[in-house]
Amino acid sequence: MIPRYSRPDMVKIWEPESKFRIWFEIEAHATDALAELGVVPKEAAAAIWEKGAFEVDRIDAIEAEVKHDVIAFLTNVAEHVGEPARFMHQGMTSSDVLDTCLAVQLARASDILIADLDRLLEILKRRAYEHKLTPTIGRSHGIHAEPVTFGLKLALAYAEFDRCRTRLIAARQEIATCAISGAVGTFANIDPRVEEYVAEKLGLTPEPISTQVIPRDRHAMYFATLGVIASSVERLATEIRHLQRTEVLEAEEYFSPGQKGSSAMPHKRNPVLTENLTGLARMVRGYVTPALENVALWHERDISHSSVERYIGPDATITLDFALNRLAGVMDKLVVYPERMQKNLDKMGGLVHSQRVLLALTQAGISREDAYRLVQRNAMKVWESDGQLSLLDLLKADPQVAAALSAEELEEKFDLGYHLKNVDTIFARVFGA
Amino acid sequence: MIPRYSRPDMVKIWEPESKFRIWFEIEAHATDALAELGVVPKEAAAAIWEKGAFEVDRIDAIEAEVKHDVIAFLTNVAEHVGEPARFMHQGMTSSDVLDTCLAVQLARASDILIADLDRLLEILKRRAYEHKLTPTIGRSHGIHAEPVTFGLKLALAYAEFDRCRTRLIAARQEIATCAISGAVGTFANIDPRVEEYVAEKLGLTPEPISTQVIPRDRHAMYFATLGVIASSVERLATEIRHLQRTEVLEAEEYFSPGQKGSSAMPHKRNPVLTENLTGLARMVRGYVTPALENVALWHERDISHSSVERYIGPDATITLDFALNRLAGVMDKLVVYPERMQKNLDKMGGLVHSQRVLLALTQAGISREDAYRLVQRNAMKVWESDGQLSLLDLLKADPQVAAALSAEELEEKFDLGYHLKNVDTIFARVFGA
Amino acid sequence: MIPRYSRPDMVKIWEPESKFRIWFEIEAHATDALAELGVVPKEAAAAIWEKGAFEVDRIDAIEAEVKHDVIAFLTNVAEHVGEPARFMHQGMTSSDVLDTCLAVQLARASDILIADLDRLLEILKRRAYEHKLTPTIGRSHGIHAEPVTFGLKLALAYAEFDRCRTRLIAARQEIATCAISGAVGTFANIDPRVEEYVAEKLGLTPEPISTQVIPRDRHAMYFATLGVIASSVERLATEIRHLQRTEVLEAEEYFSPGQKGSSAMPHKRNPVLTENLTGLARMVRGYVTPALENVALWHERDISHSSVERYIGPDATITLDFALNRLAGVMDKLVVYPERMQKNLDKMGGLVHSQRVLLALTQAGISREDAYRLVQRNAMKVWESDGQLSLLDLLKADPQVAAALSAEELEEKFDLGYHLKNVDTIFARVFGA
Amino acid sequence: MIPRYSRPDMVKIWEPESKFRIWFEIEAHATDALAELGVVPKEAAAAIWEKGAFEVDRIDAIEAEVKHDVIAFLTNVAEHVGEPARFMHQGMTSSDVLDTCLAVQLARASDILIADLDRLLEILKRRAYEHKLTPTIGRSHGIHAEPVTFGLKLALAYAEFDRCRTRLIAARQEIATCAISGAVGTFANIDPRVEEYVAEKLGLTPEPISTQVIPRDRHAMYFATLGVIASSVERLATEIRHLQRTEVLEAEEYFSPGQKGSSAMPHKRNPVLTENLTGLARMVRGYVTPALENVALWHERDISHSSVERYIGPDATITLDFALNRLAGVMDKLVVYPERMQKNLDKMGGLVHSQRVLLALTQAGISREDAYRLVQRNAMKVWESDGQLSLLDLLKADPQVAAALSAEELEEKFDLGYHLKNVDTIFARVFGA
Repeated sequence: MIPRYSRPDMVKIWEPESKFRIWFEIEAHATDALAELGVVPKEAAAAIWEKGAFEVDRIDAIEAEVKHDVIAFLTNVAEHVGEPARFMHQGMTSSDVLDTCLAVQLARASDILIADLDRLLEILKRRAYEHKLTPTIGRSHGIHAEPVTFGLKLALAYAEFDRCRTRLIAARQEIATCAISGAVGTFANIDPRVEEYVAEKLGLTPEPISTQVIPRDRHAMYFATLGVIASSVERLATEIRHLQRTEVLEAEEYFSPGQKGSSAMPHKRNPVLTENLTGLARMVRGYVTPALENVALWHERDISHSSVERYIGPDATITLDFALNRLAGVMDKLVVYPERMQKNLDKMGGLVHSQRVLLALTQAGISREDAYRLVQRNAMKVWESDGQLSLLDLLKADPQVAAALSAEELEEKFDLGYHLKNVDTIFARVFGA
Repeated sequence: MIPRYSRPDMVKIWEPESKFRIWFEIEAHATDALAELGVVPKEAAAAIWEKGAFEVDRIDAIEAEVKHDVIAFLTNVAEHVGEPARFMHQGMTSSDVLDTCLAVQLARASDILIADLDRLLEILKRRAYEHKLTPTIGRSHGIHAEPVTFGLKLALAYAEFDRCRTRLIAARQEIATCAISGAVGTFANIDPRVEEYVAEKLGLTPEPISTQVIPRDRHAMYFATLGVIASSVERLATEIRHLQRTEVLEAEEYFSPGQKGSSAMPHKRNPVLTENLTGLARMVRGYVTPALENVALWHERDISHSSVERYIGPDATITLDFALNRLAGVMDKLVVYPERMQKNLDKMGGLVHSQRVLLALTQAGISREDAYRLVQRNAMKVWESDGQLSLLDLLKADPQVAAALSAEELEEKFDLGYHLKNVDTIFARVFGA
Repeated sequence: MIPRYSRPDMVKIWEPESKFRIWFEIEAHATDALAELGVVPKEAAAAIWEKGAFEVDRIDAIEAEVKHDVIAFLTNVAEHVGEPARFMHQGMTSSDVLDTCLAVQLARASDILIADLDRLLEILKRRAYEHKLTPTIGRSHGIHAEPVTFGLKLALAYAEFDRCRTRLIAARQEIATCAISGAVGTFANIDPRVEEYVAEKLGLTPEPISTQVIPRDRHAMYFATLGVIASSVERLATEIRHLQRTEVLEAEEYFSPGQKGSSAMPHKRNPVLTENLTGLARMVRGYVTPALENVALWHERDISHSSVERYIGPDATITLDFALNRLAGVMDKLVVYPERMQKNLDKMGGLVHSQRVLLALTQAGISREDAYRLVQRNAMKVWESDGQLSLLDLLKADPQVAAALSAEELEEKFDLGYHLKNVDTIFARVFGA
Repeated sequence: MIPRYSRPDMVKIWEPESKFRIWFEIEAHATDALAELGVVPKEAAAAIWEKGAFEVDRIDAIEAEVKHDVIAFLTNVAEHVGEPARFMHQGMTSSDVLDTCLAVQLARASDILIADLDRLLEILKRRAYEHKLTPTIGRSHGIHAEPVTFGLKLALAYAEFDRCRTRLIAARQEIATCAISGAVGTFANIDPRVEEYVAEKLGLTPEPISTQVIPRDRHAMYFATLGVIASSVERLATEIRHLQRTEVLEAEEYFSPGQKGSSAMPHKRNPVLTENLTGLARMVRGYVTPALENVALWHERDISHSSVERYIGPDATITLDFALNRLAGVMDKLVVYPERMQKNLDKMGGLVHSQRVLLALTQAGISREDAYRLVQRNAMKVWESDGQLSLLDLLKADPQVAAALSAEELEEKFDLGYHLKNVDTIFARVFGA
């Protein structure tokens, strides 16, 4: 956890205080269930809720001695609850507490991440409509291709993060399970109804079959999903970085008055937020492999997954939460330069319309191969002139082209509106009618 | 693609012949749609289906010259179709063909993988019921814990692969989309209804918004899912490897009569299939990161993803298909040794019942801390005797224990049936009532 | 192995024919050593060299029956050698053959890769000197910073690949070891001098201590090194991709006459080779993790590493060989546009000289903070004018600046030569005096 | 950074206080060099050393405003130094400070890691000699193979970590470079001799050619090396985990008196330290890929690497430092059970000697194939008896075997000393004469 890449709500989920509070609730709910089943006295269950308390420092001190965190916790709680404490944790094993707690933490983390995505989606939608018809050049391979609109770029991002949202909801469901099944998952010492009771109280579903632990394929799927979302963050961040390049400059991260771009070069305004997001995406992706390696625990369980989760539980969720918020902020305040977009669009002397001419030539009866060659020989001249020559002029002057298409017909092929006629259709697909 | 780790049906999907056949169908269906819309003559569309053909070698030869695979393909098809061929690919771009084809291939590959999982699940279920009540020691940290049944181990695997099946179906849905949206996804030169038509014909859904390409977050999610499934393969394979260890030997891969375990040591029977699966899982996992790195294409697209997909498209699906089948075979024929399981279970002098005694002591009024100490001091003696001493005997002889629990009460705590009483409940959760 | 990303010499190393040839040499040399030690008859050793032969198909057929590749090989060779064949493989275990063979293959693969790097370095050096003083804008964050030369960019790449070469030589040394130590590495049935003899014959060093296998930390280090080299390939490829962007266009991949950039857009000339290299780099990097996961074999060995190496042995070396050659070709033929570089350099109205003015102001007695503000307020105006305003003009007109620096002093700060004065020094550091 | 997996010396390297102290030294040394070159007054350089100071909180406060850490630092130092502060950072850029500082931090971290390895190596050597001739079964595939000694297992680990040490020294050299080359690495505003001066003062070598940053292939190689070392940690940890399994129990992590193995099962003594090491290894390996992705910075630099390094700089070094120390502790106190090793060795009824009999049969004139079959048919009976039958007895009773080898000859083949005769040779290779 790097403070500068952290937001307080997400950090709080992972603090010892929160963790022990969840542990306490699991134990107390379980004792309630045991009391209902007549296994322990109802007064004991009540006493735990009434007198139950813990202190993080005290737990740490006990753990230093007994080298076991759950025993340390139970010992500390017992210091508050007194005699009835012996009815806590009846028939349970540490992992019942630890794994169910992790499920609660990851579910809460997911809720924050879903809210992050909701905010990002809202911003992307607003700005997509704002620039729905702002023409800009579409690029493949970094090379000018044909016109699109800036709104389409944002609608694409919207659709992508909407998919991410669906994936995250599925991932949340994967890990939101409760296991209270005892030492090796046989419920030998605890009734399965305790698990069902606690699950319901905590908003989880009972794990159909656990060993001592909740199976780690669930967590692998969860962290893999975060890795995919991080990659989508990287994609949009990379787009902005490209747009802000000096030679392109179609959009720019908001640059606040007091900010300095470079200690040495006062003229610099750098896309540092989106570069930062690129790096953060690498980190969240980096946590996927350890999570995958955690799946193959030995027999009913080993504890190798635990240290990994102490890192990636907080690190992956905190980093992604921060990244999604930073990205939302960037997109919210993004400074867009439509004039520059138009200027870049015009830069290539009309080359972006080459395909339309190609199609018109084939429809005028020229073979595809010949049409391609006719267009290419003129396009290459424009290309080599660095946009000083006009494709339209050259085509008009090319006798073989002129034989197939009149000047008026050629001119009609250079209409920008032609490229934007289906924007409404696409927007309807993405945002609904 | 490694021949020895490949099965023919999956390999076939990725052969040039299959790929070009799908390309042909995309082009032909698209031309049909264009004909219906009145953009091209209906006879041209019909001619394509009638006369359309291609030869892999010829396409390769043309590509060597033009350095563009789709153009090479179209040129070759045109050689067969003749003049009407100029109406093919109208308003389309190469990626419309390539990406839709990849979607078809991945969807077909998914169907095979789902069938693989179905077969594995069936085998796991059958063997789980076969050993539903075969007692065996449950282990945490590789150390004996408490009794479980071998059927529970298999039911756990069933539940895990059943989750994998659900994930794979979701992943298939992610990638089964069709994009025919033209150069930069604006449908400038092609009606969106063509996409819808072709999608339906190929069993895909239309991509709501594409650029030139189908967004690669879809494929990232797909390959990440395969990585999770591979990790589950590794988990079960690792379990078998452990069970076959000389000192454990509770189960064994089937060893065919002619087989040799070692060129040097004639007595060896090694778990080579499950070790092999462990390695194959590493490979399928290794393909996840390149797939994640493929997401952040530049602007409307670059082609960096293409080479990656030429590797991992076939390699990940072929390897996982092989692995799932090998695993199904291992589980189908797995030789199980219930007597050895019982022998291992008895090995620890009754230590596996220690928790039950602990609980009984607390219920008899002894504090949890004291009860733990009482049990531990006897358990450690048994442990150090390497199972020669009996925990039950020692507990009976311990005056403080005896003060709390009678000999009869103690004996009752060493009953195996106690641990198996909820197996029915768990099986019902996993396999349905 | 993807044929289109493969070169024949590297492919050959990994063909069955080559592998079995190496196996044969290991066995034959080992038998020679055994004969010298008097363990087997000298005539037997001679007979193996004389009559020894094998057929790939026959080995495959035998393996299908015995399910053991080395036994299959030995059986086939024995069919040629006859009775003396029983003296082959005396005291050896399969891994002695397999691991030593892999060492030979990886060492040969390394030699090709080193030659690839040598060629790339030669090209980079030639082109670096060619453009030693070709001015171009240096960019940080994709934003214009200060002038550099194109030769410096290439010298940087040279230095990077020179480091890669050093790393590869070290990596080659890591894996070029010979193990002939018998079943569990104790030399119980074979004299250590056999290992020494064979190692020398094959140009390897004896593995100081092996189990049944050569320790896999060596191979992990090897493939990790290939992953680093691939990342350097990606870096230079990314640089070229940026330079070829429409708005930048300072350099371009060579575009052959018959080539087509796009099936739909005849004007396209795309940096497809360097985009392809970006993808290939992802693959070679993707093989690092499986190699790292191969290290923790169980006890004296398990066979999980084997399947991984069947993939990544060929795939990583063949792909990197192809990538280094493709990169060398790109750099060899790279079309460089010095005029465009100059044009881009001039684009920012002199902003690139802002730091020098800043320094001059501080040296004229103005505090760093004040100087920064003075420069920035003028630089921002130039920035917002999209290079239409001139920083020099604005500074001359700024009374506070003018009070500190005369017009002549200011003009002197806008000299390009100032930035290039240490190019010689840097070249001397990189290429030697 | 997870406190429980951290050691104070390594943590200290990464604290803000340490970082700013290194920044200060870089700036002060650089100003000294500038003073020697006559660029700035000598008194200014002296004043910086004399009055120079900083406060972490104050820097943070300034950074919150200017959003630039180096400017914030310089501003704070200037508050202490006063007017001469304007001579600091002359001609330098932020990365000169940041990257050189990172080099110092990673070099210091490496020194700690090398010391960790030294201690581990010393422990491994001591224990290897302690158990040089303690016989134990060697296992391949988890199956008993032939006898080795426990000392050989430890010598293997020694050789592996000795290689790791060599790799780490090389990796340290990779990253211990100093770059003070100005905005885009041209030394336009700073003399190359400043870099040389500061490098020498800080124990670094000058970076031959930098852009604004030190090339990240260096860091990629560094973190990849840590990933390899972590994999070796995992290998040895996995070995211990296997040895401690209930059925094997040949060695055990030291279990301190107050320790509790399980909250539920008082008899448990689990290999939790080595399981923990397995997880920590996954984390250190997980940092390799982000480091590799950091190489391809855009043009002269972007800042995407920075956030990655804020995580993995501390996390990888702190975690590996902790892991190496934990491993050293485990190996130092490892409880070894030679009697159990002997018992396991005897368990298989003499099967471990099967190869020797095989060889003796071939030397007695039987073909390899026939000899294999003769041994295997008896070995399989022993195998199936779970070690109740004796291979020696069965072989004596097999007429075909008895025809080739006398009872005395057979008995001689079952001598343990035969397997240990080359232990001295191997130890000499590993530890020197």
